Amino acid sequence: MAKQKAKPVILITNDDGITAPGIRNLVEAVKDLGKVVVVAPDKPQSGMGHAITIGQPLRMHKVELFGETEAWQTTGTPVDCVKLAVDKVLHRKPDLCLSGINHGANHSINVIYSGTMSAAMEASIESIPSIGFSLLDYSVEADFTASRFYIKKIVSAILNKKLDKHLLLNVNIPAVSQDLIKGIKICKQAYAKYKEEFDERNDPHGKKYYWLTGEFINFDKAKDTDVWALKNNYISVVPVQFDLTNYTLKKVLEKKNLFK
Amino acid sequence: MAKQKAKPVILITNDDGITAPGIRNLVEAVKDLGKVVVVAPDKPQSGMGHAITIGQPLRMHKVELFGETEAWQTTGTPVDCVKLAVDKVLHRKPDLCLSGINHGANHSINVIYSGTMSAAMEASIESIPSIGFSLLDYSVEADFTASRFYIKKIVSAILNKKLDKHLLLNVNIPAVSQDLIKGIKICKQAYAKYKEEFDERNDPHGKKYYWLTGEFINFDKAKDTDVWALKNNYISVVPVQFDLTNYTLKKVLEKKNLFK
Repeated sequence: MAKQKAKPVILITNDDGITAPGIRNLVEAVKDLGKVVVVAPDKPQSGMGHAITIGQPLRMHKVELFGETEAWQTTGTPVDCVKLAVDKVLHRKPDLCLSGINHGANHSINVIYSGTMSAAMEASIESIPSIGFSLLDYSVEADFTASRFYIKKIVSAILNKKLDKHLLLNVNIPAVSQDLIKGIKICKQAYAKYKEEFDERNDPHGKKYYWLTGEFINFDKAKDTDVWALKNNYISVVPVQFDLTNYTLKKVLEKKNLFK
Repeated sequence: MAKQKAKPVILITNDDGITAPGIRNLVEAVKDLGKVVVVAPDKPQSGMGHAITIGQPLRMHKVELFGETEAWQTTGTPVDCVKLAVDKVLHRKPDLCLSGINHGANHSINVIYSGTMSAAMEASIESIPSIGFSLLDYSVEADFTASRFYIKKIVSAILNKKLDKHLLLNVNIPAVSQDLIKGIKICKQAYAKYKEEFDERNDPHGKKYYWLTGEFINFDKAKDTDVWALKNNYISVVPVQFDLTNYTLKKVLEKKNLFK
């Protein structure tokens, strides 16, 4: 008797919160590719980085927001959502974890600040292949048509291959219509960053407060970076790792024997 | 006329908050090595990862907590503190940024969750050489004697060399008395992680809530890891990078041409 292949279980989370259009579009894009389960924050968590909730307990409630797709909202961060999903919702590791679609870019150095990518990284650490998706459009009325098309393509390709149990991809999608997108490029993370400035103001009581603002600057002139690809209307795919060891500097330090 | 060499400016921050014994001990350890300025969170920020504050403004106040050493407390995260320090306190980049001494380990995968290391990483991105320090003792009454001795040694060695403008070190110190410490080892980040479990409870109204708990498991049998070094009473020094590109996987994906 031929054993029927079980549908892959796909966990979906995000950092803009469970009601954001981005996560609804991600569910739409991949719901035919497996059994989709959503576990996502009940409120926006942008800029939370790899935050986890230690000092207070978490709540989790089932919600009906995605038709027949099972969905839970939690009071936790994106990383908390992945942990809760594995331990309390799925009671197993999903075959794939998807995070997004983020409203706004997560290319270059943003991978470090991004709640979207942190959720995906958490899954990768847990040996769950994982992909974070971001569209370069902050608007809640962003057009996700091209995103849905390319996400389905990328997820199908990844589901059909056993590449790496720690597979982790950072996918960014330019904010242009589908006919203008030139294709998908495998890239490295650009060395680009924000030149921060704080907007200093006085409150009605005469006391100072500061708003973080900043200008984005790309220092990286290479043509295989995510910033280059996006500027040229390609979808950028950066393979990401969680071993942060700087092996080059490790060799230098060992050779110099500084701390003897 | 011989120009006198200016004292190096050393920025100090942490994630346990400005009143934690760890940061006081860090200031004590290095105050003779340069002009020290403290800019740190006004409350504990552990587990905040690389969080930044976008949705609300920040406050910052001068405090007298470290004798003659200039100090400011902010309502922000450790990363916010570094940004505020450069833009609004120092009005320049410091020569070195130190973060800690964290009360508790930041070895292996903890580098990703750690507010201590995120502050240091933020500085490194800004081309400020930076070191995060952690003592493997969560207690507020932890003994920092050995930490102070070795931190002074490490910071002196780094200040005297121009190694790399993005230099970033993750230093962990075993919780043993100074005579038992065998020395300083340059290490790689161990592949170790938490096996999470949530403690499920019912509130007085019969509703469920969850506490994050977890058991630490080291999967890495190598002898050049931080976990190995600490277990064998060495201080571990892991050079860290913020380019998260997985170049090995990049080559694989390029070769397979998956997304065509």
